[in-house]
Amino acid sequence: MDASAAISELVIANRLVAHLKLVDSFGHVTIRNPENPQRFFMSRARAPGLVTKEDILEFNLDSTPIDLRGLRPYSERFIHGSLYKSRPDVMAICHNHAHELLPLAVTKTVMRPALHSAAVIGPEVPVWDIRDHFGDTNMLVTTNEMGDSLASAVGKGKAALMRGHGSVIAGRSVQDAVFTTFYLRLNAEVLIKAMSMGGTITYLSPSEIDQSGELHHKPDAQGRAWEDWCSQAGFANLLTK
Amino acid sequence: MDASAAISELVIANRLVAHLKLVDSFGHVTIRNPENPQRFFMSRARAPGLVTKEDILEFNLDSTPIDLRGLRPYSERFIHGSLYKSRPDVMAICHNHAHELLPLAVTKTVMRPALHSAAVIGPEVPVWDIRDHFGDTNMLVTTNEMGDSLASAVGKGKAALMRGHGSVIAGRSVQDAVFTTFYLRLNAEVLIKAMSMGGTITYLSPSEIDQSGELHHKPDAQGRAWEDWCSQAGFANLLTK
Amino acid sequence: MDASAAISELVIANRLVAHLKLVDSFGHVTIRNPENPQRFFMSRARAPGLVTKEDILEFNLDSTPIDLRGLRPYSERFIHGSLYKSRPDVMAICHNHAHELLPLAVTKTVMRPALHSAAVIGPEVPVWDIRDHFGDTNMLVTTNEMGDSLASAVGKGKAALMRGHGSVIAGRSVQDAVFTTFYLRLNAEVLIKAMSMGGTITYLSPSEIDQSGELHHKPDAQGRAWEDWCSQAGFANLLTK
Amino acid sequence: MDASAAISELVIANRLVAHLKLVDSFGHVTIRNPENPQRFFMSRARAPGLVTKEDILEFNLDSTPIDLRGLRPYSERFIHGSLYKSRPDVMAICHNHAHELLPLAVTKTVMRPALHSAAVIGPEVPVWDIRDHFGDTNMLVTTNEMGDSLASAVGKGKAALMRGHGSVIAGRSVQDAVFTTFYLRLNAEVLIKAMSMGGTITYLSPSEIDQSGELHHKPDAQGRAWEDWCSQAGFANLLTK
Repeated sequence: MDASAAISELVIANRLVAHLKLVDSFGHVTIRNPENPQRFFMSRARAPGLVTKEDILEFNLDSTPIDLRGLRPYSERFIHGSLYKSRPDVMAICHNHAHELLPLAVTKTVMRPALHSAAVIGPEVPVWDIRDHFGDTNMLVTTNEMGDSLASAVGKGKAALMRGHGSVIAGRSVQDAVFTTFYLRLNAEVLIKAMSMGGTITYLSPSEIDQSGELHHKPDAQGRAWEDWCSQAGFANLLTK
Repeated sequence: MDASAAISELVIANRLVAHLKLVDSFGHVTIRNPENPQRFFMSRARAPGLVTKEDILEFNLDSTPIDLRGLRPYSERFIHGSLYKSRPDVMAICHNHAHELLPLAVTKTVMRPALHSAAVIGPEVPVWDIRDHFGDTNMLVTTNEMGDSLASAVGKGKAALMRGHGSVIAGRSVQDAVFTTFYLRLNAEVLIKAMSMGGTITYLSPSEIDQSGELHHKPDAQGRAWEDWCSQAGFANLLTK
Repeated sequence: MDASAAISELVIANRLVAHLKLVDSFGHVTIRNPENPQRFFMSRARAPGLVTKEDILEFNLDSTPIDLRGLRPYSERFIHGSLYKSRPDVMAICHNHAHELLPLAVTKTVMRPALHSAAVIGPEVPVWDIRDHFGDTNMLVTTNEMGDSLASAVGKGKAALMRGHGSVIAGRSVQDAVFTTFYLRLNAEVLIKAMSMGGTITYLSPSEIDQSGELHHKPDAQGRAWEDWCSQAGFANLLTK
Repeated sequence: MDASAAISELVIANRLVAHLKLVDSFGHVTIRNPENPQRFFMSRARAPGLVTKEDILEFNLDSTPIDLRGLRPYSERFIHGSLYKSRPDVMAICHNHAHELLPLAVTKTVMRPALHSAAVIGPEVPVWDIRDHFGDTNMLVTTNEMGDSLASAVGKGKAALMRGHGSVIAGRSVQDAVFTTFYLRLNAEVLIKAMSMGGTITYLSPSEIDQSGELHHKPDAQGRAWEDWCSQAGFANLLTK
């Protein structure tokens, strides 16, 4: 994949997460520049469902823009820059406030996968609280220090919840970032209902997480969902092959 | 913005809150007349999703109509008149029965923000119970006395819940009134689920509310959502620029 | 309104309750023949969302058909016949299995209104259990004896829940039957969430039920919702004026 | 019904379960070959909502393909082969991860019917845990041994939940498989809410299950839903008569 294909895929991804209601008017998906791993692509500041190729900007890993072309960047681009910097294996990132997972974020409930398709979130999704590290803020991740702190909460994992705010997902690819966000949300919904009914939850075992995670990271699984979502959203003809 | 632009924006706002299901067939958004702060604009009595320019009427701050043109006004216009009267800073108001927040209204649960985007609701949303002040009624706010009582519950805040009924939101602008209603509802949904799962909720701190509230009151944030919602609802071409 | 207008309105009502998801593929709305109060109109057995004028049949109050024209009647027409017989004031009836209210029906929770718009359901909605009267059955109301028993549970009220099954709503008009079903469901949803979060529910007082019920029975209120729903469902041009 | 009609119906069924959100991008419906009961038809591996006639493959009851035509089969075809082998009365099967029923699967809650329309699920839906029989796996049913174990959990019943994964439904026909999946999900949703509100659930009695199950297995009931769903999904013209 070259940079141009990456940008095309990024536009689709932004529109898909809006279509799937993984984001509302806020949140963003980014992709590392496949031609230069020290840079990443991200839309200018606008609702993900409206993103077009013309909105895509390029950033260094300290989240400084290469050329703003008069456009306004997202103030939270540091979430992405820091995570790409700390994790060379991460090729795409989704930051979102998916409504259904927020009860876990406001109760600081560490999430573990209970669904086979959610094995991709890894053994544990910690809750990062910006207040623990930076005191009272406007809750946004707007500096490299904040981004680095969040990246360190993600560690070698796939995701972190952000207290009172949302979540961040580290993908091996754009498809993986979206797929993982989708099943992270589903896992949250299922856990919340299971806790509400007072049930004892059986989580996946460490080995189940490994094996089912490997399976659900494969292009077979993720490509099947991607094709389905693009078709539902009417993007079938935008699919990059 | 002149009165004509205000009316255009008001029509969009009524249709948007219907599209976003912040209202069902009942509820209303109003705007203070930018050319005469002693008056406000409000639709004749009809479902918000059907409002057109021809439906817009003008009222004094005691909620008497300037010219009904043979149309029937909402009986609850006093919610709006009283609040505009007591709060010169309020430029737009949304009264709604958003289904998802009603569990808090029937349990008289004072709402506090736990989400950064909900900081716009302010530190506390009280529950006003019409019965405490006026005994048994048909539950509607149909006099200046009732409107004044509700306005006094809102005080200097952004909103109040109304027991067994819904909520009222005081906006700095039409966009702010709709944005605040949207995230008031989301905050309610998240709190209800968090309480149901028995979790300990971490609310925003006072300073987080201030800082995140300031951020989410900015046109940058609210305009991004407004553009997104108008696009989803097919009103892109109605946008007043 | 003559019989022909009643049939037109009945077709719209069946399609509306399907559009509003108050019914799934099962359930039915009926109307008393305005030209002959000893008879009522009801579709042949089919999903409410597909009902057309050609499907409408006429029945006596013992639920015997006047002329089946080779069509198959609903086996549960006795719900309607018995209630029209026992309640001359009832002009339309909705029987439904609205998904959201079923938790109350399986827990035999008597419902009381906590929302002003739900005052139309009356002070109390009892749960009728067919097993208490007829032992083990296939759960359907398929005889006049069963219909009479259910009608007697409704009594002078507006509705009854049916254990493990759904509900029946007695309307003063077709609009009232649909309106009451809509807010009966909303009241159920709100109560279920309020109970789940462990809150203490404030119900409407008897006088609030009377006053707010009277208000929400008026054509002003019900007509506003009806116009809105017909517009949403694309039936605006089917509206009988 | 000949094999060709069965394939047509199978395509519709796959698209319907996607339309009804009984499946997301994963899950599958299959049908026994009416011309050769030792074989069954199943799509190649793709999202159910995208299945076409050209995707349908044929398998023996040990889940070996007759002719793959270069296409990739679902790895979980063994769920189907084993169940057709052990249950000659089963003519169609649905495997799904319907989101709403997953809280029961992660809490290993045996499901019993509390709704008359859910009597078709039979007296008890057990939870099969792959870990109990095969230790740590990737959670998929990918061998005949696993398929046989799951089939034995279904036993003579209509369905089983699969821990951390989803469910499998054994149908007397394609319509029955989809109908039973739909009301299995509804039963799950209702039970989860009823448990959350702390209510005492009244389940159907054994005889009610028999009688109401018989009723809801009839073509009258299932055909009514099928016609409705096909119409909603825009497949009315695909209906095989």
